[in-house]
Amino acid sequence: MAEIERKAGATLWHQISDALTTEIADGHHAPGTRLPTEPELMRRFGVSRHTIRQAVAHLETRGLVRAEQGRGTFVHSGVLDYAISRRTRFSSNLITQHREPGGTLLVHETVPASESVANCLGLSQGTPVIHRRGLMTADGAPIELGDSFYPADRFPDFQAVRQRLPKTSDAFAYYGISDYRRIFTAVTARVPSAEEARFLKQPKSLPVMVVEKVDADGNGIPIIHSVGIWASERVRFTIDPNTF
Amino acid sequence: MAEIERKAGATLWHQISDALTTEIADGHHAPGTRLPTEPELMRRFGVSRHTIRQAVAHLETRGLVRAEQGRGTFVHSGVLDYAISRRTRFSSNLITQHREPGGTLLVHETVPASESVANCLGLSQGTPVIHRRGLMTADGAPIELGDSFYPADRFPDFQAVRQRLPKTSDAFAYYGISDYRRIFTAVTARVPSAEEARFLKQPKSLPVMVVEKVDADGNGIPIIHSVGIWASERVRFTIDPNTF
Repeated sequence: MAEIERKAGATLWHQISDALTTEIADGHHAPGTRLPTEPELMRRFGVSRHTIRQAVAHLETRGLVRAEQGRGTFVHSGVLDYAISRRTRFSSNLITQHREPGGTLLVHETVPASESVANCLGLSQGTPVIHRRGLMTADGAPIELGDSFYPADRFPDFQAVRQRLPKTSDAFAYYGISDYRRIFTAVTARVPSAEEARFLKQPKSLPVMVVEKVDADGNGIPIIHSVGIWASERVRFTIDPNTF
Repeated sequence: MAEIERKAGATLWHQISDALTTEIADGHHAPGTRLPTEPELMRRFGVSRHTIRQAVAHLETRGLVRAEQGRGTFVHSGVLDYAISRRTRFSSNLITQHREPGGTLLVHETVPASESVANCLGLSQGTPVIHRRGLMTADGAPIELGDSFYPADRFPDFQAVRQRLPKTSDAFAYYGISDYRRIFTAVTARVPSAEEARFLKQPKSLPVMVVEKVDADGNGIPIIHSVGIWASERVRFTIDPNTF
């Protein structure tokens, strides 16, 4: 295990947080095991309880560990395997992995379709589309900041319907769409913007994955286009040909 | 367009290269268009021809521009769309995108399978596997640094066969495998190691995508497991359900 050098320019709790992050990544603290206690970490790093708490709190906001009341702090079960398939469903994907799905709506508005949104949805540029921005979480840790676009004429009162039916598949069923399928996915990675890093509670130095996708109804008509920014330290996409 | 501030700690050609990179990313220099000439860039940045040449050569090694004999330097046609499908083939994928596929073998050795390699290939840990490390290129620019593992008993004289038959599908045909299919793919992203960044000729600050995959023969028996490190600034993975 690396010792902490007191480097200029990085706060002590941040250096400890980085050291523990590396050790978790290296498998030194295995997923599901208990992190050393506060007194153990205080002795090891030679710092105050306050500094250790700051370091561990930072690991917690990044989704790497989880405090369990009265039991200690546990290394998170690692990276979430998010399955891309013909029927990609956020909630089911998380529940399969024993993670609690969650989400917060940040923006709901109707806007004219940009050229790229129009192309993806098979609309003319300028056609009204519903734009929703949401922050999706797994066990409370942010994993995706997503901008989704829906053809506005197809989904009247969408906001009211979604408030009643937060699951996408339930809302679509309300509009008579009993099934929808992923027809296009593209994945790349880049450095996050300051805003993206803030929303995803991750360091700006760590990459995000950018997922562009289109879902279509049973007749192959596009109904959602979205661009999702995913925290790469918390998510791995898996593709199993048998799910297509 | 941003002016160049002469910053301490970054060489001038590097700052110019960064400024041009940003302009290309912003679409100021569109894919396929000619970059301004050397005299134009010398005037604009107020530097020598030598400095401009260093900056442009750096863009070229990163695959962002391409010099064409007697015609000037052209902005590359952007990011390569690399299709992940049931039959993922490197050469065909590149040729479809009008890119010239290439590769250099860096390592060929027979080693005992590690736990993860053994799991992916359905072997016992320690079983001999062929390990090949290669650097794959598109139009000469590196796009993937890949470590591939093959069950050694299935592919006698593999190195000699591959020297004669560099395309993976041709080599497999030699061993009686007329078809092989992708059975598992996982994609995530992280910061590259110094070695990975050097091989991929990209800045260490830009992420790489990590692709783990398994291909199987017609009977579903795994024949390759590989872990590929991909230059995220040059590649986007696409997944079309109709190709599965």
